[in-house]
Amino acid sequence: MSSVDDALDIIKRGAEEILVEEELVKKLKTGKPLRIKAGFDPTAPDLHLGHTVLLNKLRQFQELGHEVIFLIGDFTGMIGDPTGKSATRPPLTEEDVMANAQTYQEQVFKILDKEKTKIVFNSEWMARLTAADMIKLAGRQTVARMLERDDFKKRYKAEQSISIHEFLYPLVQGYDSVELRSDVELGGTDQKFNLLMGRELQKYYGQDPQIVLMMPLLEGLDGVNKMSKSLNNYVGITDAPGEMYNKILSMPDTLIWRYFELLSFRSLQDIAQLKTEMEQGRNPKEIKIELAHELIARFHGEEAARNADKAAGNVIKAGEVPDDIEAINVSLNGQNDMPVSAILNQSGLAANSSQARDMLKNGRVKVDHQVVEMQSRLAAGEYIIQAGKKRIARITVQ
Amino acid sequence: MSSVDDALDIIKRGAEEILVEEELVKKLKTGKPLRIKAGFDPTAPDLHLGHTVLLNKLRQFQELGHEVIFLIGDFTGMIGDPTGKSATRPPLTEEDVMANAQTYQEQVFKILDKEKTKIVFNSEWMARLTAADMIKLAGRQTVARMLERDDFKKRYKAEQSISIHEFLYPLVQGYDSVELRSDVELGGTDQKFNLLMGRELQKYYGQDPQIVLMMPLLEGLDGVNKMSKSLNNYVGITDAPGEMYNKILSMPDTLIWRYFELLSFRSLQDIAQLKTEMEQGRNPKEIKIELAHELIARFHGEEAARNADKAAGNVIKAGEVPDDIEAINVSLNGQNDMPVSAILNQSGLAANSSQARDMLKNGRVKVDHQVVEMQSRLAAGEYIIQAGKKRIARITVQ
Repeated sequence: MSSVDDALDIIKRGAEEILVEEELVKKLKTGKPLRIKAGFDPTAPDLHLGHTVLLNKLRQFQELGHEVIFLIGDFTGMIGDPTGKSATRPPLTEEDVMANAQTYQEQVFKILDKEKTKIVFNSEWMARLTAADMIKLAGRQTVARMLERDDFKKRYKAEQSISIHEFLYPLVQGYDSVELRSDVELGGTDQKFNLLMGRELQKYYGQDPQIVLMMPLLEGLDGVNKMSKSLNNYVGITDAPGEMYNKILSMPDTLIWRYFELLSFRSLQDIAQLKTEMEQGRNPKEIKIELAHELIARFHGEEAARNADKAAGNVIKAGEVPDDIEAINVSLNGQNDMPVSAILNQSGLAANSSQARDMLKNGRVKVDHQVVEMQSRLAAGEYIIQAGKKRIARITVQ
Repeated sequence: MSSVDDALDIIKRGAEEILVEEELVKKLKTGKPLRIKAGFDPTAPDLHLGHTVLLNKLRQFQELGHEVIFLIGDFTGMIGDPTGKSATRPPLTEEDVMANAQTYQEQVFKILDKEKTKIVFNSEWMARLTAADMIKLAGRQTVARMLERDDFKKRYKAEQSISIHEFLYPLVQGYDSVELRSDVELGGTDQKFNLLMGRELQKYYGQDPQIVLMMPLLEGLDGVNKMSKSLNNYVGITDAPGEMYNKILSMPDTLIWRYFELLSFRSLQDIAQLKTEMEQGRNPKEIKIELAHELIARFHGEEAARNADKAAGNVIKAGEVPDDIEAINVSLNGQNDMPVSAILNQSGLAANSSQARDMLKNGRVKVDHQVVEMQSRLAAGEYIIQAGKKRIARITVQ
């Protein structure tokens, strides 16, 4: 264990808010390994650098000797959307959850230390809870307090419907902290209300309340909006090395230090040194290359990082599709649509259906320059489909 | 079974609102016995005539050949008040519930036909429900809709706290209708929101929605406020015959026909006849005596009803305590307070503690003219305590 002051410097790096810092200091001073909780969605994960901000902080806690509890919130995921309004949120089966958890692990252990990470599923305790227990839990919070939560407040004022079960989910998240006896919970700033719920419930159950550590939401490559797939301003952690390289080099110079602070594992001293160099005239591109090298090495290994600049030239970008690519027709056989996996197989872009599924699972299939998911289907139309780095075709589904 | 029109006349007698009457007619036309649900609190019952308005309607359904389901809502009673704010609502044990149910039955079977009444406890199915089931149920209703309920709306506007579990209780009541597949649910007008919840949930679960029949809240003897113990404008169904007689005769003439409509089992024709007689000069007191006779016979038997006018002279009323009653001292032995049962025993107002408990259980003990309950305790002070009809003393607790 480092000294408490050193540990605190590391913990506070990039953190947006810590509630309550004095309590954290007190816990650190005990010298005991702390239980660090972070909750994750059980839906199919496809992580980008924005998600890794939190994972990096977890890793720092691990390096400081603490225990990370990686909580997969499968309990609510398996309930799905009980209002039935959101057709896109069907209940997950236990198999879905396990498969997603597997994918998560493949991705997060590029950052976290497997030996110091405990993966838990909240269905383990939540499935034992009865309706009566749920009612008692609901008695711990008021409607007015719940409507203070930013998103609820906005929706209530805008007369958008809030289903009552949505009031129960923050309580479930808070109760997870009770079950896990967590010392610290990490989350995004958008999670503040739910994170504090854990504190309240822990107090009620006679536990020391957890410290809440909120990490900022990472800006995307545009430097304006938060990083997200739908805004197409993201770097996916399964992006190919060349693509990662191009994307990172494309970011505005103003983002460089923010990304270093939140994404790099280099010390703050190192980063200060780089900053000085840039101020003294070093080309920002060189600094970006250093960051790209570190990140590509993390997700693809050192060799890929060394060759990334060469690989970058091979990436087919939107608007740069060669004119002479192969045109292939695929038949719907009278159906309305068909799975992308079948299209890959029929068109020959994949050698067989097993390879098609593998590529989809690894996020290596793009339709019109967007990565598509395992379950994606296409209706009649013309698409540019790219499978892996080199195979590309203009596919007409008819 | 009577004809549908005749049945409808009986069902509508005194009813405040029926939702939806056409659906009720449709159900009656099937000729099948309907399942008539009414829910009751599992807390210690001490029924007054106000409560019997609903019971009388249930009895009419029984006489029409339908099945009455007397639901004791023990599930929520056994949870108690999870906010911990109301010290007066401790969770009931299973023994409490059974004891209260027993007392209920003794009282309600003076009105209902035991053979045609099915007593059920909602813990039977609610205890099987999981937290996940409860969350799904909560998904069936929105916060906005719940805040439309009169009492919630008022409290929310007045910034009085509403605990989230209170939003779940109407859903539990509604779900009871699903489990019971009720055709009709009876309740007071103050229950409208909860009664309609049963309709909504039944529809969701693919059942025909229940018809909701709301009975008015009976005015108390003052003719203004609703009958309630706390306003001391009530006639308890365990009130002694003489007391009942005095109370009923004390009511204003304006209440006579309202009470006949809601409390008497006499036909509307009979009542119209009485009304004509009074309009033609018959003394209203005679009409009240007829009502008193019917009600006393119902709760105490025909003989008690015949002798009620004589018994009435023996009743000790507030302000009529004889000057020369016995004065007895009872010692607290250094405690802050003591149970009324022990006071009865020590003072000799009860022959022994078993008799003391019996009298308390039957509502035959009054402290300063108010019936007290089994668990009541008294601190130091001077009290007029009456045990049964004849025993009375001025007790100094010190």
